[in-house]
Amino acid sequence: MPIRSQGYQLLPVKNNNSEHSRENDDVSDVPSRRLRLGFLILFIVITFYALFLAPEKPSLTESFQSSGHPGLDKCASPIAPAAKPPTRTNPWAPLVVSEITDIQRWLEAPQRELNLTRGSSAILSDNVVYLIETYYPAKADALAYLAGGSAPDKYAHVVIHHGGSDAPIIKNYLVGPLPVSEQMSMRLLSEIYHESEIPFNARGFVNIEELRDVFKFISPELSEALDDLFGATARGNDNDTLVASAGGPFSFDGSTRKTWFSLRRNLPGPWLLPINFWQYIDVSGTDPSLWKASKIVYNHQIFGSTEEFLQSYRNGTLIRVPEQVTGANEDFSWTTRKRVGTPRDLDHLPGPRSVSFAGLRFRVDRATQYISWMGWGMYLSFDRDMGLNIWDITLKGERIIYQLAPQEAIAQYAGNDPLQSTTAWQDRHFGMGLAVRDLLPGYDCPHEAVYLPATTHSALGVIVREKAICVFEQDTGRPVSRHTGYMEGEFGAVKGYMLTVRSISVVGNYDYGASIFDYMFHIDGTMEVRLSASGYLQGGYWEPLQEGYGGRIREHSMGNLHDHVINYKVDLDIAGLENSLLETIAGQEIVEQPWLEDDEWGRTVIQQKITRRIIQTEDETLLKYPINFQGHYSIVNQNKTNAWGNPRGYAIHAGYNPIHNTIVGSRRLLNNANWARYNLAVSLRKETEPSSSSMWNMNLPGKPTVDFHKFFDGDNITQDDLVVWVNVGTHHMPQAEDSPNTKTTVAMSSFLLTPLNYFDSDISLESTNAILLSAPSQPGEPWGFDDYGVKQDFTCVPETPPPFEYLDPKVYDEEGRLKESESVEDMRKMAEMYHRIKYEL
Amino acid sequence: MPIRSQGYQLLPVKNNNSEHSRENDDVSDVPSRRLRLGFLILFIVITFYALFLAPEKPSLTESFQSSGHPGLDKCASPIAPAAKPPTRTNPWAPLVVSEITDIQRWLEAPQRELNLTRGSSAILSDNVVYLIETYYPAKADALAYLAGGSAPDKYAHVVIHHGGSDAPIIKNYLVGPLPVSEQMSMRLLSEIYHESEIPFNARGFVNIEELRDVFKFISPELSEALDDLFGATARGNDNDTLVASAGGPFSFDGSTRKTWFSLRRNLPGPWLLPINFWQYIDVSGTDPSLWKASKIVYNHQIFGSTEEFLQSYRNGTLIRVPEQVTGANEDFSWTTRKRVGTPRDLDHLPGPRSVSFAGLRFRVDRATQYISWMGWGMYLSFDRDMGLNIWDITLKGERIIYQLAPQEAIAQYAGNDPLQSTTAWQDRHFGMGLAVRDLLPGYDCPHEAVYLPATTHSALGVIVREKAICVFEQDTGRPVSRHTGYMEGEFGAVKGYMLTVRSISVVGNYDYGASIFDYMFHIDGTMEVRLSASGYLQGGYWEPLQEGYGGRIREHSMGNLHDHVINYKVDLDIAGLENSLLETIAGQEIVEQPWLEDDEWGRTVIQQKITRRIIQTEDETLLKYPINFQGHYSIVNQNKTNAWGNPRGYAIHAGYNPIHNTIVGSRRLLNNANWARYNLAVSLRKETEPSSSSMWNMNLPGKPTVDFHKFFDGDNITQDDLVVWVNVGTHHMPQAEDSPNTKTTVAMSSFLLTPLNYFDSDISLESTNAILLSAPSQPGEPWGFDDYGVKQDFTCVPETPPPFEYLDPKVYDEEGRLKESESVEDMRKMAEMYHRIKYEL
Repeated sequence: MPIRSQGYQLLPVKNNNSEHSRENDDVSDVPSRRLRLGFLILFIVITFYALFLAPEKPSLTESFQSSGHPGLDKCASPIAPAAKPPTRTNPWAPLVVSEITDIQRWLEAPQRELNLTRGSSAILSDNVVYLIETYYPAKADALAYLAGGSAPDKYAHVVIHHGGSDAPIIKNYLVGPLPVSEQMSMRLLSEIYHESEIPFNARGFVNIEELRDVFKFISPELSEALDDLFGATARGNDNDTLVASAGGPFSFDGSTRKTWFSLRRNLPGPWLLPINFWQYIDVSGTDPSLWKASKIVYNHQIFGSTEEFLQSYRNGTLIRVPEQVTGANEDFSWTTRKRVGTPRDLDHLPGPRSVSFAGLRFRVDRATQYISWMGWGMYLSFDRDMGLNIWDITLKGERIIYQLAPQEAIAQYAGNDPLQSTTAWQDRHFGMGLAVRDLLPGYDCPHEAVYLPATTHSALGVIVREKAICVFEQDTGRPVSRHTGYMEGEFGAVKGYMLTVRSISVVGNYDYGASIFDYMFHIDGTMEVRLSASGYLQGGYWEPLQEGYGGRIREHSMGNLHDHVINYKVDLDIAGLENSLLETIAGQEIVEQPWLEDDEWGRTVIQQKITRRIIQTEDETLLKYPINFQGHYSIVNQNKTNAWGNPRGYAIHAGYNPIHNTIVGSRRLLNNANWARYNLAVSLRKETEPSSSSMWNMNLPGKPTVDFHKFFDGDNITQDDLVVWVNVGTHHMPQAEDSPNTKTTVAMSSFLLTPLNYFDSDISLESTNAILLSAPSQPGEPWGFDDYGVKQDFTCVPETPPPFEYLDPKVYDEEGRLKESESVEDMRKMAEMYHRIKYEL
Repeated sequence: MPIRSQGYQLLPVKNNNSEHSRENDDVSDVPSRRLRLGFLILFIVITFYALFLAPEKPSLTESFQSSGHPGLDKCASPIAPAAKPPTRTNPWAPLVVSEITDIQRWLEAPQRELNLTRGSSAILSDNVVYLIETYYPAKADALAYLAGGSAPDKYAHVVIHHGGSDAPIIKNYLVGPLPVSEQMSMRLLSEIYHESEIPFNARGFVNIEELRDVFKFISPELSEALDDLFGATARGNDNDTLVASAGGPFSFDGSTRKTWFSLRRNLPGPWLLPINFWQYIDVSGTDPSLWKASKIVYNHQIFGSTEEFLQSYRNGTLIRVPEQVTGANEDFSWTTRKRVGTPRDLDHLPGPRSVSFAGLRFRVDRATQYISWMGWGMYLSFDRDMGLNIWDITLKGERIIYQLAPQEAIAQYAGNDPLQSTTAWQDRHFGMGLAVRDLLPGYDCPHEAVYLPATTHSALGVIVREKAICVFEQDTGRPVSRHTGYMEGEFGAVKGYMLTVRSISVVGNYDYGASIFDYMFHIDGTMEVRLSASGYLQGGYWEPLQEGYGGRIREHSMGNLHDHVINYKVDLDIAGLENSLLETIAGQEIVEQPWLEDDEWGRTVIQQKITRRIIQTEDETLLKYPINFQGHYSIVNQNKTNAWGNPRGYAIHAGYNPIHNTIVGSRRLLNNANWARYNLAVSLRKETEPSSSSMWNMNLPGKPTVDFHKFFDGDNITQDDLVVWVNVGTHHMPQAEDSPNTKTTVAMSSFLLTPLNYFDSDISLESTNAILLSAPSQPGEPWGFDDYGVKQDFTCVPETPPPFEYLDPKVYDEEGRLKESESVEDMRKMAEMYHRIKYEL
């Protein structure tokens, strides 16, 4: 007979006080007739009440569900129980709408003398508040608060475009403390940047107005020519069949602002439908009258101006692309996500769905965005530049990570055309937080996921997305550990569960159209940080001369070769702040041992040996994973050992696709993304080095706002507060299967953080979702088992998930008023910025 | 309002003809009172019937479930619907008990003149049938059968230990055709080996008898000394507190058979409890009277014989291990898997469980072990050496893989002691198929998993394990692809599902105590082959001189540094048999383009470029993954292109831990595992090269039965039938968290096979478990959507999973009679072989 521990009981389910049927098993396998009759009477009474007397007049289904049933109870709603955050407030919380609005008003006050114009109506030569968001407190202050002290003062980081200055410039300010009061002040925020003033040509996108002046570069004459050459128009009206998309970076050092435009068909997924036409646009400075279209490339012919092109077109010297590729008769429906082909066998059935029959096991405090699960605890935050980030990640009451946050995402392209060959995006520029989109319940995250909102500010107002983040627990489907043994205690398994915190950014609509940021926590203390990519490729125009620069995916379309590299900041605190970097490498040795002899085996053995070394200074911390992964890097506390004398530590292991950037020396990434050259890097933590990049880095390869290499200035890094900068990414060599969208089955990359002698033994053995078998008393009998009182077969009647619904986010204006919903076209414009530009007149 | 496609309907659930509640939603939200009353009366009638009249007297729960309920229906049982295998029989099926028994009898017939003794009672100098199993048919014959021809003749591979010969030898035979008839014959099977006759000293384990003669090496005098030195005894009785474990390989070239014994405490998980005592045993030949214990190592002192050791012990010159480590008072309970510590918050609740509310979506044909799911189809087979293997893996009707099968698993150790420094296991020797253990439902595989049996033969009979393999579908929790877009057809997601086929081998009980073999199939045509490891380390005796050879995990225990490398055979057939190996590498180029100018960007760009090359011969096919994974290898059909002119192919991508063996040149792996030096290798497929290893390779590093390097003899490999040999593995640097068992969260490794222009576009877009959103007609309205008629929220009352049960496998004797169940101790002996040897007298 199975051994059953009596120590644990299922929690009573919400709104339901009756017992669980499975718990009755031990009492009696067959309820007596008296008991049955009692249940029957009870049931009839309850059913009558529900049908005729209940005030809410529920449907039969509902009455059944809420009344309880003598057989199977209704399951608890999948509502996360309340978490108990260690502090009253989240010191890293994004600003709320009213805080942002208050700061906006304070900035607009005449005594500030900022002469501000509101973003929605601003032109380039105006002064505009580009960003208002939380400035994360100093670590010492936040730690003091976590330790029971007072909350740190709250400050805002404010970015202002001083387009109205004689020398237009962008400046960062620190504004606070909050809330707005007499004490509030502002000062230049320069200590966190290597260049305190940002060239105006490196600026971010304020509104669609700044694009209006580039529409003129498709003159009516040029439009006529395009119509003739491609059977497609860009006349600036609703029927246009061409749109443009730009390449970046827009600037090298801030002295100019230029971009290549690629014309594409104005159809769904236009990024896959380029035509053979590129235009080089110079949009330097704030005076659009000085802007010009300086070059046109068409069918391998280069023209110094639009006029030169038109002249050639008119005088018949233009070598035209053959007729059949004008696209007049082509079917472009392949660029949509609409279902195609024959459905697979049994795919008309919904697939398996995860149900927490006994209720959700992770806790959430919505007010502070604090989450806890199986001994893990963490605060979430969110910013414009990179979206979701996580703070104060603790396990069993000890902080492991102070901050875990993506820093930057580059995408460097190759191609035999002007746009692809010169494009190296850095998505922070566009705002990966701003580009977070609401998750699709049941599709982007499993049904029981709990959603959390995010608030982001831009020059056009404040966006609140209700489903910006999802949190869910999953059965990994694989035991954490197991063994079939024979002696007492050798035989058993611990079930594998994982908590995932997820957010999805859709930056523009090129590849990494969807960057799925996953933070996955395991019960043994391991966590995986994984990035998956989907969405549309930034496609190119296919012709045989493109061979080597990607893969042909359709008649005249290709996916261009590109590298994605994404950098994460991991501020580990291992048993306190005093940490060191341990290098562990396995090599080969030949060793003679006295027990060996001159037989067939010889007097020596060739074997592995580990070399462990504490790296002393930042001079040796720009790192690649060891060859053949024969070792790893870890953060350890040399003064805090586990019970066996090993320094407590956490190791960084490569996960899927452990890559760094391929290209070195390109002027498009000259010094603005040097972190991408390595797999990981470790630096001394400084308040002045909060991030490896900035939103302007993309446009300043020659004069980066944050110059990552400058972090590595020889500081001693033994027993001090350290930060690990870790990369994930993919070398994306596109193929037909990237069409219409890239797939997360292969376009993903990850790294793992895992305890390294941090504990004295495997802590997942604490799990009660586990089983231990014991030998049968008689041969042939079933084996005994202890399931620690946790009934894996516990079943109840699950709630039907809510019907699918997708709503637009809430947008607030500068006054904090909820705006009218925008048209889809307006949403598109802001979402896609430079990535799909529809001509308007 | 949501758009709902009407094209698909949920299948009616088993035993239930009523409608689904969700489907009623559109008809009426609130049933009328009349309807309610009708239901109530119906319910009362049914309940009365169930309580008082039903013949089976079901419990209330059962009556509810079987009667149906007006609210929610009872779900279908999680029973896999029937698959439709392409052929009537599985041409690779393992032999069934009667086939094995028939062959055994045929072999035992006097006219065979084999003079056989049955395994259970055999001694080394007997002739014993060591193995009878399916000999896989020639590929041409199997393909002819798949194409509609007749089934290939069935042959058995028979291994006989000719211990009774003047020169004892092991021979392989081919016996057939089956069934046994006048036509049956046997011949030497030598064409698949580089050495046709196997030295007897390289033999596998027949029964516990052969160990009996090594027990004498712990003489009563030595036992006394051990008792004094360690407070532990090995006197050959039940109360013994010491056991031995051996190291391997046992032989270099078959001329001798020797092994180091490490004494360990006879407690659960003894592999973690070595004492400081090693004995070198020479067990060459078949005459135990010639065997000897040739060396003893104790506390860094080496003795040439037991007598020398005892002399030193007696005369007081022995330098003893200090008193405190004799272990008399130590608590060794840490070596068990018993739960420890404080349970985590909410861990008293069972975690989320996956439920296929509308029924399982994969099909299984138990008779042929054929499985299909979402367009994938495959046959399973199973063998003694490596267990589960998969044949004829098709997707959408086309074969992608002819055979996918693990080949070998090495574990090469390092240490400052005689056993660890000389051990390089190759688990095929022990039989990873024979070592498969029944899966623990709900712990090793999710609750809805379908289990399949496996039959394996050994010299002691035939074992049938009912739960040797599990198959289950999972929601990956992550969309395969998704995009938030704005134009029609741009916005949507395809849900990610995965089918896993799993088997777990527990070889001996050292590390890789549990090797979890996972084959994971995705709907886009990608599959991942993953191996996860758990179980006990082969631990060493910790002392400071072990520094560099592993990690200390307890007071006197360490985990020794070791490499695991596992080789898989992947016989890809891409659009037919004529395949080539494509190398795709991305490098860096500097290129001048006419559209560039002498501005801040310069006249050149530095960018990536792909070099694609068909590798011509086997001279260049021993491969490592490209540096920084800047490219990949793929199998393509140069003559079959997709619609865009790319050769159709499948690429091999690195997954987790893409490693090869660290050590090169060790005599313990001199030439018997050369496959482990690479990440992958590609050879021309030959019937004479079915496997990269053999069960004797472990013991023949100097004269391997299969010499992998000999496969690579310069054959042309363009447009021919190719095999890819791919490695996974881990560099295991043990740490405290490996205690008591290694964790699958980090001890895992994988590779991916993924379509490379095999299709014209992403086939996962065929999925109806997907959603497509469409813009609202009015700003602010919810977005429309098409869920293709598949209701993700479909809910019914799930069946409670069957209660946990673990039963011993069925064992049949040489006559095909079901044996009495064995004692746990007897099971242990056979399971652990050389890995835990209990002394018996």
